[in-house]
Amino acid sequence: MAKEETLYGVGVGPGDPKLMTIRAGEVIRAADVLAYPVNGAGTSRARAIASALIPAGVTEMPIHIPMRSEREPARAAYDAAAQAISDHLKAGRSVAYLCVGDPLFYGSFMYLSARLKGAHKIEVIPGVASLSACAAQTLVPLAGRDDVLSVVPATLGEDELKSALAAADSMAIIKVGRHFAKVRAVLRALGLEGRATILESATGESERITTLDKFSDETIGEEGAHYFSTILVRRKELS
Amino acid sequence: MAKEETLYGVGVGPGDPKLMTIRAGEVIRAADVLAYPVNGAGTSRARAIASALIPAGVTEMPIHIPMRSEREPARAAYDAAAQAISDHLKAGRSVAYLCVGDPLFYGSFMYLSARLKGAHKIEVIPGVASLSACAAQTLVPLAGRDDVLSVVPATLGEDELKSALAAADSMAIIKVGRHFAKVRAVLRALGLEGRATILESATGESERITTLDKFSDETIGEEGAHYFSTILVRRKELS
Repeated sequence: MAKEETLYGVGVGPGDPKLMTIRAGEVIRAADVLAYPVNGAGTSRARAIASALIPAGVTEMPIHIPMRSEREPARAAYDAAAQAISDHLKAGRSVAYLCVGDPLFYGSFMYLSARLKGAHKIEVIPGVASLSACAAQTLVPLAGRDDVLSVVPATLGEDELKSALAAADSMAIIKVGRHFAKVRAVLRALGLEGRATILESATGESERITTLDKFSDETIGEEGAHYFSTILVRRKELS
Repeated sequence: MAKEETLYGVGVGPGDPKLMTIRAGEVIRAADVLAYPVNGAGTSRARAIASALIPAGVTEMPIHIPMRSEREPARAAYDAAAQAISDHLKAGRSVAYLCVGDPLFYGSFMYLSARLKGAHKIEVIPGVASLSACAAQTLVPLAGRDDVLSVVPATLGEDELKSALAAADSMAIIKVGRHFAKVRAVLRALGLEGRATILESATGESERITTLDKFSDETIGEEGAHYFSTILVRRKELS
């Protein structure tokens, strides 16, 4: 019987292939199977970032997770993907699962590792988080010294948003997309609109950076601010 | 007159040199001047991580920032360092300032960039944050789906700690060190001790990972848990 192999969760960073780590490159080049999440149209940001490193002819395993509000379809898809990965590992084939940013920071890999840890050897290659890229592009510090940083998904309700932001010195609001109007209203109510910077598609081709008080609703377009938009807020200056 | 050059803030990642990005390597190899923070004894973790890439004979600029509770000595040291860096840039020499982890996530670079932006071209190369390495070592997710993540320095007072943790689903308590007893008491009071994992020196040689309820005070040693210790807490399981 073949030796059981390792599952790697590989962070490929925020978008620029040069923001991949040396270790990520090693693992991608050596893995027997490359798995990655795909959207409904079958395309994968993670695969696109790593594409120059992917050996010709390697076995690829695109994984589609339905992203609806009901969780059951997603759970069933993770179960099936975990089973398929487990079969490869038992047959002695290493599997690298590619993740945009960092695998354990708002990624899908954690749902696979929760199902497979204990049964299989797992190694996570941490990556540069998209949030760090946002900070780099704007030169807005994520957090300094004794700052409390809150990372808050814009999907929360207005009251939850307010309480999540209440105790923080620095705030990063992610997944802004169609929640833009709600987020702006909350920041305005908290007196923080003038201290907020919005980034659309950080490090992507359509990147745009604006302070929130100069950001016109008209510039958002019909679909609302891009799904990957991020708002960074600092309550006070560095001291 | 020489062409003005760029200041690079370079994240060298959490400790393993293979967790540096390709772009960080390029910048370190090409810079005219390498600057980095040093501790009171004159040693630099950031330089140690990058050491294999540092060209022989490059100009080096160790920067010591006094880390006392009064801020004035630190401010004066940042002012002097910013001036020295500015002189190099004006003379046409590029400067790379090396940072452990990510430059804008609890690093010293933000105090230099705050002084120099506007006057000089600045480029930040984001890095893998130490927190991502902690998550990778433990397989404890930092945050998933609609989780609110609070990153909280253990230096805060007990009440501030409690309110910073109150609204969060996931918590990362950093700079634990001599604040260990206070942090454990707060987590115990919040009913979260059994959901906490402590890491000492993640990815370092003396790495140790324990769930907090099994972590004996005796194992901390006279100096308290290591300064770079981190506690990760998740209020609930992934769903």
